[in-house]
Amino acid sequence: MDPSRPEAAQQEHGAGADRRGERPTAAAAGERYVDELRQLVELVERGDLQALDHLLPVLHAHDLAKLFGILPRARWPEVIARLDIGQISDLLEELPDHLRDDLAEHLVHEQLRTAIGEMASDDAADVLADLPAALARDLIEALPRQGRREVEALLKYPEDTAGGLMQLELLAVPDTHTVADAIEMVRAKPEEVSTFHFVYVVDDRQRLVGVLNLGALLLAPPEQPIAELMKRDVHTVGPEVDQEHVARLFRRYDLVALPVVDSRGRLLGRILHDDVVDVLQEEADEDILRMAGATVFEPELVYTDQVLKIASVRLPWLLATLVGLTVPALLVAAFQVSFPEMMTLVPFIPVIGAMGGNVGGQSSTIIVRGFATGRVDFGNLGRFLLKEAVVGLLMGLSCGLVVAVVATLWRGDPRLSVTVAVSMLVAMVTAAMLGVLVPYFFRLIRIDPAIAAGPLVTTINDTTAIGIYYLAALVLVGR
Amino acid sequence: MDPSRPEAAQQEHGAGADRRGERPTAAAAGERYVDELRQLVELVERGDLQALDHLLPVLHAHDLAKLFGILPRARWPEVIARLDIGQISDLLEELPDHLRDDLAEHLVHEQLRTAIGEMASDDAADVLADLPAALARDLIEALPRQGRREVEALLKYPEDTAGGLMQLELLAVPDTHTVADAIEMVRAKPEEVSTFHFVYVVDDRQRLVGVLNLGALLLAPPEQPIAELMKRDVHTVGPEVDQEHVARLFRRYDLVALPVVDSRGRLLGRILHDDVVDVLQEEADEDILRMAGATVFEPELVYTDQVLKIASVRLPWLLATLVGLTVPALLVAAFQVSFPEMMTLVPFIPVIGAMGGNVGGQSSTIIVRGFATGRVDFGNLGRFLLKEAVVGLLMGLSCGLVVAVVATLWRGDPRLSVTVAVSMLVAMVTAAMLGVLVPYFFRLIRIDPAIAAGPLVTTINDTTAIGIYYLAALVLVGR
Repeated sequence: MDPSRPEAAQQEHGAGADRRGERPTAAAAGERYVDELRQLVELVERGDLQALDHLLPVLHAHDLAKLFGILPRARWPEVIARLDIGQISDLLEELPDHLRDDLAEHLVHEQLRTAIGEMASDDAADVLADLPAALARDLIEALPRQGRREVEALLKYPEDTAGGLMQLELLAVPDTHTVADAIEMVRAKPEEVSTFHFVYVVDDRQRLVGVLNLGALLLAPPEQPIAELMKRDVHTVGPEVDQEHVARLFRRYDLVALPVVDSRGRLLGRILHDDVVDVLQEEADEDILRMAGATVFEPELVYTDQVLKIASVRLPWLLATLVGLTVPALLVAAFQVSFPEMMTLVPFIPVIGAMGGNVGGQSSTIIVRGFATGRVDFGNLGRFLLKEAVVGLLMGLSCGLVVAVVATLWRGDPRLSVTVAVSMLVAMVTAAMLGVLVPYFFRLIRIDPAIAAGPLVTTINDTTAIGIYYLAALVLVGR
Repeated sequence: MDPSRPEAAQQEHGAGADRRGERPTAAAAGERYVDELRQLVELVERGDLQALDHLLPVLHAHDLAKLFGILPRARWPEVIARLDIGQISDLLEELPDHLRDDLAEHLVHEQLRTAIGEMASDDAADVLADLPAALARDLIEALPRQGRREVEALLKYPEDTAGGLMQLELLAVPDTHTVADAIEMVRAKPEEVSTFHFVYVVDDRQRLVGVLNLGALLLAPPEQPIAELMKRDVHTVGPEVDQEHVARLFRRYDLVALPVVDSRGRLLGRILHDDVVDVLQEEADEDILRMAGATVFEPELVYTDQVLKIASVRLPWLLATLVGLTVPALLVAAFQVSFPEMMTLVPFIPVIGAMGGNVGGQSSTIIVRGFATGRVDFGNLGRFLLKEAVVGLLMGLSCGLVVAVVATLWRGDPRLSVTVAVSMLVAMVTAAMLGVLVPYFFRLIRIDPAIAAGPLVTTINDTTAIGIYYLAALVLVGR
C-alpha cells in the first residue's frame, strides 16, 4: 500500500499545460486542455509510438484517465502496453466505474493484483468494491496478509460514509514519545511523509488524545515530550457518518485531514482533503441531475454513450410526470364542458400552469440546495414557508398585474382579466409554498428531496395552478 | 497578517459536537449542530452571560458566524463585547457579505482596523473588497506599510480569479540554500508553519523553480542543497485564471496548495485548498440556483429574510417566461379558431407542452453541469447533440405510445391518437436537441449557460412542443 501518490503526483506532472497560464478564462483553459488530449488520441491513431513513449511517462493519472475516456477501445492495448505498473495502478483509481471494468478486462490477473497492491488502502478498497464480485474476491485473497486485512476492514463500511472514505495509512505516535522519537517514526516511512501533514498522538489504548503539525516537529527541541507540544482538541468523526456531513466538516473548519475514531475514541483511520473535494463535486452533480429528473445514481452515466441506459434512468421521471399530467388534461376537458361560452379562458391555461411550475421550481431548488448545504433544516421550516409565501405573493402580484393588463387589451373582458389575475396570484403563492413543503415531505419520509425539485414539483404545481384557475373561473365567472 | 489561523482553528475548537459521532446520518448530525446553536441563542436571550463566557472562547469562527446568522441584531453587542480581537477578525472573515456590513457597523474603527491587521492577506483583501468603499479606503490607509502594500496588490485582482484567491504568505527559499538554511527560514516564522505545507524554491529572479514538502526537510541531512531535494515539475496558474478552472486543477491533481506565478514565472502567491473547497461549493450553489432562475449573483441572498430583494432577483426570470408564454397562449387561441370541430385536441396541450419542457430540462441540465465540470466542451457538441437526439427518440417513442393508448381509450378517435403520439415524439426529440443547443448558444455568446437551463429552456420547449402539436394537427387532421 503506497499512500504517497497524491502528493507525489502533484510534482510529477510535466508537460505543464497550466503552467503557461496566459489565457484568462476557465473555458479557454479547459478547451486547451481538451485539445491537448485530442492530440494525444491522434498520436495513438496515427501510430506515432515514439511520441507516445515520450509523452506517456509525464502524463498525470487524471489526464491518462481522460485519455482512456476518449480513446477507441481498439487502441487501448497499445497504450496499456506502454504503462508501468504504477501508472496502471493510478489509472485504475482515476477511471470512472464503467471504464474501470473495461480496463480490468484488458489486464492479466498478475497486473491487476500488483496494481491493487500499489494503492493506498482506501483506493484499493474503492476499486475492489466496484470490480465484479468473483474477481474482487480472487484479488483480495492474492494480497499480502496485511493488505488483505486492511482492505477487508475498509470494505465493511459503505462507500458513502466516513469509513468508506478513510485510509488506514497515517502516522500515530504514543503520547509518551519525545519529538526525537516521533521524527524517528517519520523517518521509518520516508515514502509516505508527503501525505502525512499531521502526527496523531494516541494513548496506550490507541485512543486519539492529540494532534501535531508535521512542521511543529521541525521547530521543537528533540527531547521535548510530544504530549507537551500536541493540541488536545481534535475534530473527529465516527466511521458511520455520512460523506455529505464529512464534507461539511471539512468546509466548516478548513480541514486538510480528519481522523476517524470508533465509539471508544480509538483511532481507525483518516480522511484526506482530496477525497472530500471529490465528494463535494459528486454530491453537487447528484443534486443537480436529480433535480432535473436526469439520474438517480452514478451521475457519470449521463456523460457516456450508453443511450439505452441513459434513456432508462430518465424515462421513469417522464412517465411519472406523464401520469401526473392526466390531471390537468382532465381539468381542461372539464373546463370545456363547464364553460363552453367562455372559451376565451382556455388560452391562459398553459400560461398559468407554466408560471406555477416555474415558481415552484425556484422555491424547491432553494430548499433542496439549502438542505444539501445545511442552510435549511426542520428547525426553520416555518420561517422558510412564510418567507416563500411572501416572496410568492410579491411576485404573484407583479405577474398577475401584467397578465391582467394583457388580458384586458387582448380580450377586453373584465371578468376574464380578474379571473386570470387572481388565479395567477393564488397559483404562484401556492406554488411557492408547495415548493417548500414537497421537499420537506420527501425529507421527512427519508427520500432524497432533490428528486422532488424537478419535474415532480413542476407537475404538481402545473396541475395545482390549472386547478386554481378552474376554481377561480367557477367562482368568478359562475355557471 | 497572520495566516496561521486555518490550521490553528482546526485544533482549537473544543465542544466536540462531531466527536461523539454515534448518529449515522448527515441529516441527524446537521440537526444536532443546529440545535446546539439554538441553545446558544437561548443562552444569549435568557441573559445567561456566565454560560456564554464559558462557551464563546471554544466556539469555532464558522460556528460563531452561524450564531450571528440566527441571533437577533439587538443581542449582538453583548456577544461582541465578549469576543477578543482574534475572534472578531475570524468572524469578519466567516460572515456572509450582508452580515459583515452589519458587524462592521457594530465595531469601532480601532477594532475593525486591528481585526483586519490580524487576517491573512487574502482574507483581509476579501473583507475590504466587500466593505463600503470609503470605509475600506480609511482602513487600508491605517494598515502598516507592508500590510497595506499586500492588500493593495491583491485588490487589483478580481475576486473570482486565481489572483483573488491567492494569499501572499508563503515560504520561498533561494535555490542556493541548504536544508539547514531552509529550516532556519521556517523557524523565523513559527506561527505560520502550520499552513505552509510546502517550501517553494525560487531562483535569483524570484522565478519558481521547484517545490519541497515540509516533511522532506525533516528527513534530509542538514547540509544537503535544496536544489537536489526539490521536485522541479510544479503545477502553477497565472493570476488571471478563472476560479472555476483553479478548482478543477485542485480536483484534477489532488492539490493542497497551488502557487500563482506571473507571465515570467515569478512567484506571486499561493492558493490554499480550503479556499478552493469554498469555490466548489459556491460554483455549485450558483449553477443550481441559476438553473432554477432563482438567482444570478450571491446565492447566500435567497437564504436571508430580505424578501423584497429575493423577489426582485427571481421576478425577472418569471416575467421573461411570462412574455415567452404569450406564444403558446396565442397558439392555443389559434387552435380554437382553426379546429373548432376538434376541441378534443385541447386537453392534450398542457400535457405535450409540459413533457417537452421536462425533457428539455433534463438535457440542458446535463449539458450545463457538463460545462461546469469540464465534461462537455465545444469539441464534443456533435456527439452530445446526436446522443440526446437518440435518447429523446427512445423516450419519445415510449411516452408517445403511452399517450396514444390513453387517448384511444379516452376519446376513441384514431386521428386524435396519432396526432397526439406523433407530436409527443417530435416534441420530445426537438426538446432534447434544444436542451443541448440553447446552453451551447449561451456559452458561445459568453453568457453563463446555467441561466439557459431553467425556466428559459422550459418555456422555449413548452412553446415549441405546443407549436409542433399545432402543426401536427394541421397536417394530420387537416382543415
